[in-house]
Amino acid sequence: MTERYDRLLAALREVALVNSVYFVVEWDEQVMMPPGGASHRAEQKAWLARTAHTRQTSAEFGDTLSEAEREQAGAADDSEERAVLRQARRAYDRAVKLPGALVEEITRTTAHAHHAWVEARKHNDPAKFAPWLAKIVALKQQQAACLAKPGQAAYDVLVDEFEPGETTAHLDEIFGALRAPLVELVGRVMGSGRTVPGELLARDFPVDAQEALGREAAQALGYDFTRGRLDVSVHPFSISLGPGDSRITTRYHANRFSDAFFGVLHETGHALYEQGLPGERYGTPLGEAASLGVHESQSRFWENLVGRSRSFWRYFYPKAQRAFPGTLGDVREDDFVAAVNVIRPSEIRVESDEATYNLHILLRYELEQALMSGDLKADDVPAAWSDKLHGLLGVRPATDDRGCLQDVHWSGGSLGYFPTYTLGNLFSAQLFEAAGRDLGDLDASFARGEFAPLREWLREKVHRHGQRYQPQELITLATGAPPSVEPLLAHLRRKAHEYYGV
Amino acid sequence: MTERYDRLLAALREVALVNSVYFVVEWDEQVMMPPGGASHRAEQKAWLARTAHTRQTSAEFGDTLSEAEREQAGAADDSEERAVLRQARRAYDRAVKLPGALVEEITRTTAHAHHAWVEARKHNDPAKFAPWLAKIVALKQQQAACLAKPGQAAYDVLVDEFEPGETTAHLDEIFGALRAPLVELVGRVMGSGRTVPGELLARDFPVDAQEALGREAAQALGYDFTRGRLDVSVHPFSISLGPGDSRITTRYHANRFSDAFFGVLHETGHALYEQGLPGERYGTPLGEAASLGVHESQSRFWENLVGRSRSFWRYFYPKAQRAFPGTLGDVREDDFVAAVNVIRPSEIRVESDEATYNLHILLRYELEQALMSGDLKADDVPAAWSDKLHGLLGVRPATDDRGCLQDVHWSGGSLGYFPTYTLGNLFSAQLFEAAGRDLGDLDASFARGEFAPLREWLREKVHRHGQRYQPQELITLATGAPPSVEPLLAHLRRKAHEYYGV
Repeated sequence: MTERYDRLLAALREVALVNSVYFVVEWDEQVMMPPGGASHRAEQKAWLARTAHTRQTSAEFGDTLSEAEREQAGAADDSEERAVLRQARRAYDRAVKLPGALVEEITRTTAHAHHAWVEARKHNDPAKFAPWLAKIVALKQQQAACLAKPGQAAYDVLVDEFEPGETTAHLDEIFGALRAPLVELVGRVMGSGRTVPGELLARDFPVDAQEALGREAAQALGYDFTRGRLDVSVHPFSISLGPGDSRITTRYHANRFSDAFFGVLHETGHALYEQGLPGERYGTPLGEAASLGVHESQSRFWENLVGRSRSFWRYFYPKAQRAFPGTLGDVREDDFVAAVNVIRPSEIRVESDEATYNLHILLRYELEQALMSGDLKADDVPAAWSDKLHGLLGVRPATDDRGCLQDVHWSGGSLGYFPTYTLGNLFSAQLFEAAGRDLGDLDASFARGEFAPLREWLREKVHRHGQRYQPQELITLATGAPPSVEPLLAHLRRKAHEYYGV
Repeated sequence: MTERYDRLLAALREVALVNSVYFVVEWDEQVMMPPGGASHRAEQKAWLARTAHTRQTSAEFGDTLSEAEREQAGAADDSEERAVLRQARRAYDRAVKLPGALVEEITRTTAHAHHAWVEARKHNDPAKFAPWLAKIVALKQQQAACLAKPGQAAYDVLVDEFEPGETTAHLDEIFGALRAPLVELVGRVMGSGRTVPGELLARDFPVDAQEALGREAAQALGYDFTRGRLDVSVHPFSISLGPGDSRITTRYHANRFSDAFFGVLHETGHALYEQGLPGERYGTPLGEAASLGVHESQSRFWENLVGRSRSFWRYFYPKAQRAFPGTLGDVREDDFVAAVNVIRPSEIRVESDEATYNLHILLRYELEQALMSGDLKADDVPAAWSDKLHGLLGVRPATDDRGCLQDVHWSGGSLGYFPTYTLGNLFSAQLFEAAGRDLGDLDASFARGEFAPLREWLREKVHRHGQRYQPQELITLATGAPPSVEPLLAHLRRKAHEYYGV
């Protein structure tokens, strides 16, 4: 008997359909929309968010869910049905606690705030964005108040929204286990006296050739361009507009190789996950990514574990040389590989190396908690940001557009999102270790340009399950051990040793 | 007292908001979407069409409309309120006659049919499109049956949908008045023995330079790129995604100058109309274009009356020469202007000259009537098309992709749309005559690159009114005379005389 359960699936698909229209409108806004469209676009998004919320919280939906639960009461704990019901119940219980007007207000505010952030960043003027940040924090506090379980801190509510089951207590443990080793590792690298020729990535890289090379790399990793596309946006992102339409974006600078190239690999990793989800389950929890942390594990996997490996460049460096003959023609492969593995404290998260990256996340994690608790005011963010970066990495942002204005997330209301990046880093290193155990010599296949076995391994272990398992459980099943900081630290220590002799 | 009326305006704006989301999704589909997205996109569009229809036909909407009518019963015949009520009543009465399932089915079918048409055209295979055309005709027959007044023919219903108040009886008169003079004029031109160097527009025109020049021309005419954008699509079109976001598309061929350049001027004309509508009235009949015929008058105005004039090229030809120095450097301005004014029977409507253009429309007008009446089957369209083109212009399409598969309209369900192109041509010539009377020497200002006075004249006479007046009435008010074929015929005869001496 699956009549009620099937009805639930249909109802879930209807909500997903509305959300998918929102994603079309969102993609267009970020990538295509002329400035004159901003104001009406906010109304379109507010309407769509409200409509999805109304459907998701209707009495009819609630009844359908309850009836499906009764019908499937006997389903096994590890069954698909149980997973669907768990996720649907979780989403419904959260949605009904949020007033539609608040959902609409958050959507409208962040639509406007995004453009304010773009302007503030362009003019290096955090005061232009501060009132929007203050408003967004207030709205997120309201949202958290609606959703909080007794005794749950506001920031914990937000974290759990992006990463089901995650808590600040657990994140504190993780960051606690990462902080000292990373600071120490970066210190040793800095003290090694060894320099890596990172400046060769700041030479002349014509944008057209960057775009062509990025496209070639995405295709080599398995990104299907008949079910996606690559464009330019202020802040790179990946998004699915429906099954069969998973898009990625990047941004180009004519004298920076890494931003766009590794950005494309990163977003390709996200898109491979989306393209690997079971299309026939689209719109149900079994056709959706497990969590943002797991999503980020896929992007960092291809960006870092694969894309910065020596063996990847054994295959790909000749292509890069052909793309930039004047710039890379006389650069040795070894020097190039060392350059893409440079470790050096810097201001910009998305340009930072694998070792310092999680310290950038730690900074945001702590500032977000302070914003949500009220200990930090929006106006004081620029100074706090600078101080904290200095404390962690010994550098200060030269300007605020390279400091607190560098990231898109807060303008979109995504407070509590950043920690999922560090979770993704942990998961990616752990998955890569496990894949190596299962598949044998990955380096040999990378050097031949063979990425399909690895991609299929991820499909099998991660993608095809959708939300069948909770994130931590999924990683445990895929790798044979619960998530841990050790694989990442081991990976980084190997790198430090290989490139800096420390 | 405007309380009920204001409530009606708000309800109309809500429907417009839903429709505007549809336009975002539609633009993306035509311009950006990868092939893999097609199937889900059809579901998104079907949902949006159904949602707009549900809102527009709700009992609540009907009550709001009736109450506003009662409240405004005393409004003057020529008042804004009367115009809004007239248009809202017309739209509502039509919408409630259409079952939501039919609206959804038409949307879903045409979304799929569009892709079938693209494929059929690419492979020159009309049999691939014929079943879709047959299905669309059947759906349009159903639609017409729902909407028909007693005794009204199905095709009349469709025509009236696009051009309020228009009938086949009146269109027969117009085409009757055009057919013989145009066939005769084209015959005289062909018999003149004079050749115009049209082939120089089929030389080497690099696409990048075409794009830059088209952009420059659009800007010169007054298109505001901060409230629009120019892209590439299979079939050029213009669309508004909201107030402040009116986009245009074109398509480039490296050895054809006219397609893209005059295509851009054409779509710019549409977009200038959209950008000239009163933004504060957006979503109400007073903020929407009067009709498709009036819309087409704006595109043809800038494309032909302005863009093919000798004085426009006095200003713009040096720019074209700079854009294509190798190709146009040694071409005299006179020869170039003659080339863009060539008259010559050909197969492709959008590439055809002003004199033969309306005969292409006449062909479609007659085939559409035959399809709707059942006299012509979808399978027989290729042969009928070829025969009719031969009868009107003495040529046959070399292949079906240059014949019955050339236009996008039928795949989108837009039967009854083509005649509005001829109406637009009539209106454009009549408006241009009137503008010349009002503004004096237009040629002198074109030669100086001054288009603002003409654009402002159109804003004043046409754009700012939205749907305040019925199309025929609007043209009459703007030009001082009811619509007639005479200004267009006079314009074409002057051209034939100027360039062919006949």
